[in-house]
Amino acid sequence: MSSENSGNGCPFCSKSVNASVFLEKGNFLAIYNIAPVLPGHSLIIPRYHVTSLLKLDNREMISFFETARIALRILMKAFNTDAFDWSIQEKPEAGQTIEHLHLHIVPRMKGDLQHPGDWYPLISTNDTAIIDSLNRPRLDAASLKQIVTELRKINPQ
Amino acid sequence: MSSENSGNGCPFCSKSVNASVFLEKGNFLAIYNIAPVLPGHSLIIPRYHVTSLLKLDNREMISFFETARIALRILMKAFNTDAFDWSIQEKPEAGQTIEHLHLHIVPRMKGDLQHPGDWYPLISTNDTAIIDSLNRPRLDAASLKQIVTELRKINPQ
Repeated sequence: MSSENSGNGCPFCSKSVNASVFLEKGNFLAIYNIAPVLPGHSLIIPRYHVTSLLKLDNREMISFFETARIALRILMKAFNTDAFDWSIQEKPEAGQTIEHLHLHIVPRMKGDLQHPGDWYPLISTNDTAIIDSLNRPRLDAASLKQIVTELRKINPQ
Repeated sequence: MSSENSGNGCPFCSKSVNASVFLEKGNFLAIYNIAPVLPGHSLIIPRYHVTSLLKLDNREMISFFETARIALRILMKAFNTDAFDWSIQEKPEAGQTIEHLHLHIVPRMKGDLQHPGDWYPLISTNDTAIIDSLNRPRLDAASLKQIVTELRKINPQ
């Protein structure tokens, strides 16, 4: 996998992402969102700056979704549910705010929001909360470390 | 792939789905949504009644996403855009209304909706429009046939 240009300033290319990683598989990472829209809100990203799902070769795409499904199993166990939302947005027209491929995984619980779809506008408008805590509550370093440590212990089988 | 029970009455197990199929790859189909939230709104589904992404074995999961990405390339060409939303909802808590695994692909255009995320509540509340046209405008048979015929002609390479 080769990194595209313009990774400078990309929050998903920043070393600070390391503290959020709970699963690594080849060139793909599962990271806990430091500003989750709901408990368990995580992201699957390539390790290098890749802007589009269409820019992965087939082998990489398979690895991306294999990583995603393992992360999903971990999150379903950790949050004791079998309900989830899974979403990719590409380009600003689709609501994307960080131009580095990322898949959102959000575990869901009965009654967690007034309407099931209410989480979605939050990512469309506030993705930058990952680097800017003004819009969504941001986890402190200790809370993030605790969650990530627990997730790393879970056997996805 | 084995079909789970309770496919009876499932709209994605109905023979009427055949008119919407624009891509077939093994046990997976890409179908044009007869009640699209936006032009190009399509679905990737297993041919048999499977309720969850977690119930596919690894080979099937790979085939599911390979089919999805080929369908995505076709739709990006057909609707002349590189912007899209891609979404899976599992269980009613997550907004799912038809309990048969399906991935939504929605091509996006600048200014197609007031806010980029505005398409999402429509699928959460109105998935049943696929079989019940009360909530979303439903394509007539001739319009659907024309779109599907055009999509089938497109070379995804």
